[in-house]
Amino acid sequence: KFRKEHGLFIAEGQKVVEELMGSAIDVRAVYAVREWVGEHGDMAGRTGTDLHEVSPAELGRISGLVTPNKVLALCRIPEREDGLSADTPVVLALDGIRDPGNMGTIIRTADWFGLGEIICSEDCVEVWNPKVVQSTMGSIARVKVSYTGLANYLSLAGKPVYATVPEGESIWVSKPREGIFVIGNESQGVRQEVLRYATHRISIPGTGKAESLNASVAAGIIMAALFIS
Amino acid sequence: KFRKEHGLFIAEGQKVVEELMGSAIDVRAVYAVREWVGEHGDMAGRTGTDLHEVSPAELGRISGLVTPNKVLALCRIPEREDGLSADTPVVLALDGIRDPGNMGTIIRTADWFGLGEIICSEDCVEVWNPKVVQSTMGSIARVKVSYTGLANYLSLAGKPVYATVPEGESIWVSKPREGIFVIGNESQGVRQEVLRYATHRISIPGTGKAESLNASVAAGIIMAALFIS
Repeated sequence: KFRKEHGLFIAEGQKVVEELMGSAIDVRAVYAVREWVGEHGDMAGRTGTDLHEVSPAELGRISGLVTPNKVLALCRIPEREDGLSADTPVVLALDGIRDPGNMGTIIRTADWFGLGEIICSEDCVEVWNPKVVQSTMGSIARVKVSYTGLANYLSLAGKPVYATVPEGESIWVSKPREGIFVIGNESQGVRQEVLRYATHRISIPGTGKAESLNASVAAGIIMAALFIS
Repeated sequence: KFRKEHGLFIAEGQKVVEELMGSAIDVRAVYAVREWVGEHGDMAGRTGTDLHEVSPAELGRISGLVTPNKVLALCRIPEREDGLSADTPVVLALDGIRDPGNMGTIIRTADWFGLGEIICSEDCVEVWNPKVVQSTMGSIARVKVSYTGLANYLSLAGKPVYATVPEGESIWVSKPREGIFVIGNESQGVRQEVLRYATHRISIPGTGKAESLNASVAAGIIMAALFIS
């Protein structure tokens, strides 16, 4: 509600706030304890950011974290055009990712591999959620995340669609390089209505006994496999 | 303290509790809401587990989670021999992993790839921490985790030691298959005193701008690379 009304999002944690201050994101205000202000206050001065020194207790009251950090920033949600560039050779698609930590980690991993765009089903966790922002470790400034009706998007994409499923072809055998790569929900996997538009079904082979991989680990292995050089 | 004194650990969440009840772990007592008892009570009966029906409010009071689940179990910490089997071809070593979610996810991923043993530096998060247990999704029953002075262990191991570092040889080039694979702390990476015993330094190549990968994603990609078939 706060995000929709004011067009702002909250970033917490030193690493994330410092990364965002050095990025294209418009950091509107920073609330920090004396120690952080002493070390990084001049950075805020250079970028024209509104800097407020607060006590640890005050920071604790505005923080959403159980263990509040030294600094919290209010940032403007960037206005980005909806939809994806048509010419991206690799698109990551997320079908119902609900855990903020998974979402943020997937964005961070995409940024590591130079993947600039992610498309999400409408029931994925919102990308400006503070826990998502924190888990991206600043990569949120560089990766564009769009939300859409995923089944409909895939039906119109005109590209190979690789869905990650429990019993698909091994990624080391199929060796995909281009297309749309779908990662499914943490417990349900890829939805049937999305799976209908898959041109390929792929898996990460394992010989152990775990029932599944964590969604952000699976996404990381798929991305790594795409960029083997 | 509770864990040391009673030799018990807490498992929370349906998936984890159900996995543990079907495993070699000794589940001593289960506290569950009526709905869970109705669906799974007979399972507790079969395994001789002490089952207690509690109200959602009571479960909330004993739960460590912000959003308590339907079921919580008290389990006996298994007595396992210290140290590793000398003949394991692949050993995962963790140097200062502090985040319980990362630790649990790494254990789950190891179980996926059939890796039965993990060695941890003494400052890694404790494996019987409820958040670690929950993130393993039950894999904690199958993967043996030991704690030791990691530098000393590596100095005596007599095996190739691959440390994951920011600027090492690409894993797709070095293609390691056997040895000890070290994953470092979330923000500091592999410690200097541990790095001294590395015979190889490896990296996951990325062309993007993220400063690093999440530790559990990095561990997942390294394990996947080891078991490419």
